Amino acid sequence: MEKKSVQDIINAFNKQKFMKFLNAEISINEPGLCQISIKHGEDLTQQHGLFHGGVISTLADNSAAFAATSLMEKKREPLTIECKVNFIDIADGSRLWAIGKVLSAGKRIFHAEAKVFTSSDDGSKLCAVALLTIKSTLRVEEIL
Amino acid sequence: MEKKSVQDIINAFNKQKFMKFLNAEISINEPGLCQISIKHGEDLTQQHGLFHGGVISTLADNSAAFAATSLMEKKREPLTIECKVNFIDIADGSRLWAIGKVLSAGKRIFHAEAKVFTSSDDGSKLCAVALLTIKSTLRVEEIL
Amino acid sequence: MEKKSVQDIINAFNKQKFMKFLNAEISINEPGLCQISIKHGEDLTQQHGLFHGGVISTLADNSAAFAATSLMEKKREPLTIECKVNFIDIADGSRLWAIGKVLSAGKRIFHAEAKVFTSSDDGSKLCAVALLTIKSTLRVEEIL
Amino acid sequence: MEKKSVQDIINAFNKQKFMKFLNAEISINEPGLCQISIKHGEDLTQQHGLFHGGVISTLADNSAAFAATSLMEKKREPLTIECKVNFIDIADGSRLWAIGKVLSAGKRIFHAEAKVFTSSDDGSKLCAVALLTIKSTLRVEEIL
Repeated sequence: MEKKSVQDIINAFNKQKFMKFLNAEISINEPGLCQISIKHGEDLTQQHGLFHGGVISTLADNSAAFAATSLMEKKREPLTIECKVNFIDIADGSRLWAIGKVLSAGKRIFHAEAKVFTSSDDGSKLCAVALLTIKSTLRVEEIL
Repeated sequence: MEKKSVQDIINAFNKQKFMKFLNAEISINEPGLCQISIKHGEDLTQQHGLFHGGVISTLADNSAAFAATSLMEKKREPLTIECKVNFIDIADGSRLWAIGKVLSAGKRIFHAEAKVFTSSDDGSKLCAVALLTIKSTLRVEEIL
Repeated sequence: MEKKSVQDIINAFNKQKFMKFLNAEISINEPGLCQISIKHGEDLTQQHGLFHGGVISTLADNSAAFAATSLMEKKREPLTIECKVNFIDIADGSRLWAIGKVLSAGKRIFHAEAKVFTSSDDGSKLCAVALLTIKSTLRVEEIL
Repeated sequence: MEKKSVQDIINAFNKQKFMKFLNAEISINEPGLCQISIKHGEDLTQQHGLFHGGVISTLADNSAAFAATSLMEKKREPLTIECKVNFIDIADGSRLWAIGKVLSAGKRIFHAEAKVFTSSDDGSKLCAVALLTIKSTLRVEEIL
């Protein structure tokens, strides 16, 4: 079985126009782990200028999905089946980043978690945790 | 207790720059229900040109949060404590919309659900369902 | 494809000794829907004599899993991949029952919801809602 | 603020008749952490003699709730607002135990996680992970 290379994963990430729209950056350091980060900008905020919850969920979901991707065969793609995020602190930093991690890699079903942090001059803190189920698929139409 | 007016809710929505960035539109027809919709655009897509999962989660979360807002006192704001989304079909339409609905409105804790649909020339279909917990707060810093 | 009969489902339910331990009863009225109910007893309570949250989760999970079973081929079995329950009211009645419903039935992945009610002399009320992902499997060892 | 003692927590646990029914045992080693364990017995099984998913959810929920309790004032009690469990491996051991851990302790809202393990002669393994929201309350009627 030929696994995906880091370049394969970066290419897949770059095909997601929504990631470019958010100016998100990916980094894969080891198989089964993925980091996605984003800089604060007005466009990404809720009513108090904090990172919007939707941006937090997006990074949580995508970091876990790409962590799963890094363990899949070259021809396979991830499909998030479900994603659950707990928002545990306000996201008031200048940067937001999520670390996705595969908890168990099955034949088709992956369980993963993600932790989302914000950082400012005062340091960084955990602002959200997520638990997800991801499917490995040959074609995105196979969602079910 | 003075409740929020529809105009209060629309004003709160307009303060979320991320909603403007996504070109999202809100509609409140009755207290405890909220619809948020968005047109398809390349910027909102994943690798196959479908609506990105992060966009789907964003609409699910926000439609439920604003549904909860519509039942809160004028001076209170919603904070999503947690949000869980199941992705049940591919989001391949030209429009995406979420309907958030409050299931139970407590003194401070609201339970809500959201259903997300896509529509195309062939009609519309359910593509995601969500279950959320939302807190009513006086200040966003009170996240916990 | 030969589907399961109602008797097949009841037989499968009766093989779950934990259901017997809880004195739970199943009823299947139409494919994709399942009801499981239980009478109040001291053994099933938390510190205030209410139904324990674990009992509520158990009924939510199992009602959804057997609803999914009712749509599966004769030789297949359900495996709950994940289950999320929101507890929206106290479970203070004399009977607890859950209604599981399949939201979407894929080739292998089922999305389902469950609603859990309690009833007393004053009537009945919704006390929990759940959202689940269930896998159809040939062998329980195929959990992943 | 007077915190609960370990004995207070054990007393609270012993008031949950459902825990006695399952023959569950609690152990609190440090504030914010709680372990609940249970021995395999036929009464706790699903159709293949494995621990029933409802038993797994019950331990996950309760270990997190008692971990939160260990950080609460003497007069306060935990109420699980919502609980999400991912089942990642089959629970085929002779013992099942959950470790609940508080991720963030707010004034009223606690975020927590739980990990559930099984052990057999071959060693132990992770079989489920959970993410929960718990409320600190003065009276259980204040569920919302």
